[in-house]
Amino acid sequence: MNNINQTIVAPTTNISTQAISLIRISGDDSFNIINKLLKKRITETKNVWVRKLYDKNELIDEVVLTSFVAPASFTGEHVVEIACHGGILNTQKIINLIIKNGARMANKGEFSQRAFLNNKIDLIQAEGINDLIFAKNELALKIGVNNMTGVHNQSIINLKTNLLDIISRIQVSIDYPDYDDVEGSSVEDLTTALRLINNEVTALLKRSKMAIKNANGIKTAIVGKTNVGKSSLLNALLNEDKAIVTDIHGTTRDIVTGEINLENISLNLIDTAGIRKTNDVVENLGIEKSFKMIEDAELILFVVNKENLNDSENKEIFLKIKNKKFILIFNKSELISNEEKIQLINEYENIVFTSAINNDIEMLLNMIERLYFNEEIMNNDSLILINLEQISLVEQIKNKLEQALNAIIFGVPIDIINVDLHQAWEFLNQLIGEQYEEEIIDNIFKKYCLGK
Amino acid sequence: MNNINQTIVAPTTNISTQAISLIRISGDDSFNIINKLLKKRITETKNVWVRKLYDKNELIDEVVLTSFVAPASFTGEHVVEIACHGGILNTQKIINLIIKNGARMANKGEFSQRAFLNNKIDLIQAEGINDLIFAKNELALKIGVNNMTGVHNQSIINLKTNLLDIISRIQVSIDYPDYDDVEGSSVEDLTTALRLINNEVTALLKRSKMAIKNANGIKTAIVGKTNVGKSSLLNALLNEDKAIVTDIHGTTRDIVTGEINLENISLNLIDTAGIRKTNDVVENLGIEKSFKMIEDAELILFVVNKENLNDSENKEIFLKIKNKKFILIFNKSELISNEEKIQLINEYENIVFTSAINNDIEMLLNMIERLYFNEEIMNNDSLILINLEQISLVEQIKNKLEQALNAIIFGVPIDIINVDLHQAWEFLNQLIGEQYEEEIIDNIFKKYCLGK
Repeated sequence: MNNINQTIVAPTTNISTQAISLIRISGDDSFNIINKLLKKRITETKNVWVRKLYDKNELIDEVVLTSFVAPASFTGEHVVEIACHGGILNTQKIINLIIKNGARMANKGEFSQRAFLNNKIDLIQAEGINDLIFAKNELALKIGVNNMTGVHNQSIINLKTNLLDIISRIQVSIDYPDYDDVEGSSVEDLTTALRLINNEVTALLKRSKMAIKNANGIKTAIVGKTNVGKSSLLNALLNEDKAIVTDIHGTTRDIVTGEINLENISLNLIDTAGIRKTNDVVENLGIEKSFKMIEDAELILFVVNKENLNDSENKEIFLKIKNKKFILIFNKSELISNEEKIQLINEYENIVFTSAINNDIEMLLNMIERLYFNEEIMNNDSLILINLEQISLVEQIKNKLEQALNAIIFGVPIDIINVDLHQAWEFLNQLIGEQYEEEIIDNIFKKYCLGK
Repeated sequence: MNNINQTIVAPTTNISTQAISLIRISGDDSFNIINKLLKKRITETKNVWVRKLYDKNELIDEVVLTSFVAPASFTGEHVVEIACHGGILNTQKIINLIIKNGARMANKGEFSQRAFLNNKIDLIQAEGINDLIFAKNELALKIGVNNMTGVHNQSIINLKTNLLDIISRIQVSIDYPDYDDVEGSSVEDLTTALRLINNEVTALLKRSKMAIKNANGIKTAIVGKTNVGKSSLLNALLNEDKAIVTDIHGTTRDIVTGEINLENISLNLIDTAGIRKTNDVVENLGIEKSFKMIEDAELILFVVNKENLNDSENKEIFLKIKNKKFILIFNKSELISNEEKIQLINEYENIVFTSAINNDIEMLLNMIERLYFNEEIMNNDSLILINLEQISLVEQIKNKLEQALNAIIFGVPIDIINVDLHQAWEFLNQLIGEQYEEEIIDNIFKKYCLGK
């Protein structure tokens, strides 16, 4: 990260044709720089100002400035925000003008990074902001908001305090081996205290792992023979979209091609275009490739018609997906009698009837919700992490705690156990960003969007 | 336009994944509505507030509010602007929440329309804002900014005053026919005064017509045989793009497929894909269709190689475009000797040499600039209009003035002449929006973007 002391500028809204664009300046020189563009200066106070921007004597735009004085700003530095007219050219011109007058372009996530370095937010809060912005459904949004505001971070601080207490007690036993009877330093006491901490960490990990699927989306493949109504099912699902259909950012596997955001659950669709060729017996290679792709899916939506349910191609699909979680979808349900439906329900698990062409997919939505939506998580008001890096840190903390617990049981010398506990404590620090290596921090904030 | 008194809300930035989104509320209830979402109320003052937004007790986001008190706001009404975190879901959720609490979604351009109806801006200023936002190059940007701030609108007001003066003098002559000698009401005096006004209107029209091409773009077709380097020329032009390549909004002709924004001139490219088939003599129908399409172009970039310059296909192209403005581009100039270049320059007009593959297109850029860029317009500090509706109004004003002038010369009775002048005066009023029909105004603002 270059030049941490320089005043930085970036658009905080995407640059596109829109009514207003927002540009943020942060750093010691924020007020100096903006005043170079004004004929009527603004003072170093928290305020809102309507001003004309000039490049020397050329009028550039009429803008609204909002100013914040260090340390009472998002970054903890002097901040001036410019709400200018939202043309692409206009926004770029103003940013260039600010750069010309002494700021440099901010890196991705650099405002948040400065907020973090100035102790305005901890790492869980910073990641919360990012989770909020990229939230695809209500659960992710709620977790993002909670984590951004840091309401639950006290639980991590408590864990740290309790763990440090144990470490200190062990340290005393090591330093003063004669004092066998330091209070709370018996093997039983330590084990009990450690178990309590481990239980909490385990619960956090469990909650987070349950939440991450709901929040980030379930890899889903729609499969079935041609002409069973896969396309109309897809369209009906897209119509259910409470949010917006977007390309997924940062999915590297290439096979995830779109997403459907239901209210509380997102489905990350896997392209199984190849499957459509299952009828064409000659193209065995193509079929195999498609099946390999859906091996990656967590959930299979298997669309059939009553008539073709048991034909050879469907039997082959059944065979391929039998070990996966799948929902058997009888589409064109308008053609199935109630007697037949009851019989089918008796025969198969996870079966739903849809009439995609009539937009009737309620049974399917209920089934997906029943399989994945976790009321417990949605209403849980404790800390939940939905970020893979954070969850991986919590996993390491849990490993270290369990190593320590096992070591105690096997009578391993107490000073060796203390090494594990120290590491667990350091991971806890990393989780909220109280201990960090500069490079790691740089990498974390790089994934944020520009202007954040 | 429905319910002009209701408090309205809209995003003023496009809703996309970005650091911050801006939402504007305008109307009598702005403060009441926002306070329903706050635990810590804000007061009716111009100020900036950092607040948490709640839906009842559920925390929604941490936001920055900027408040403006009527009439000192953009719309002239109470305005509260919300800078919230920029997730798609988050932004939509907050807008929905505001609607649930009593606002309605704003129509396109409705904030500007209210500003206009509350006499905060006139029509030229409103159109200036729109021109600024959609500006594709420096000239359009400059005109948009000037018109937005209304710096030149005094000239229209002066024209109105002068015209009204003439109308009054004629009215006196009509009302008191005995007073032949009302000062300045002789035919000579009236003619002189009218000519002065007409000269100004004519100059405004001329400036505006010259500017509109530079500002809005020149319909341009790149033609030539296959393999002469049309694609690499296109790529080289795209690399010159100082702004951004966008699809053109609102072009209904379908044939404009993209735009290239040079610093001061924009080229609206016409798709002449069909032309690529000119080699294929069989496909005469296709060729004809392509040629019909390029008839719409104002500027033809005709790419040739030295070798094929005079072959039959190129001769046919020459024939088709000979009455249009074209630049003859000898691409692959690295293969042409200086002697040959001089000979070609002597032989042809508007000829340039490029080496698109080496990104060397400077000669072409200079030629386009020489043909179209108008220094006089760029440095002109008078009112310029680049909006077709406005230019059409000015044309009607000019027509009426000239009708009146001719009528005077032909000795038409003075009261009939006064009808023309009245109409000219009304068109002037329409130009700045002092006289308008509600429906026309609705239509004008509908073309603005949401949140503007």
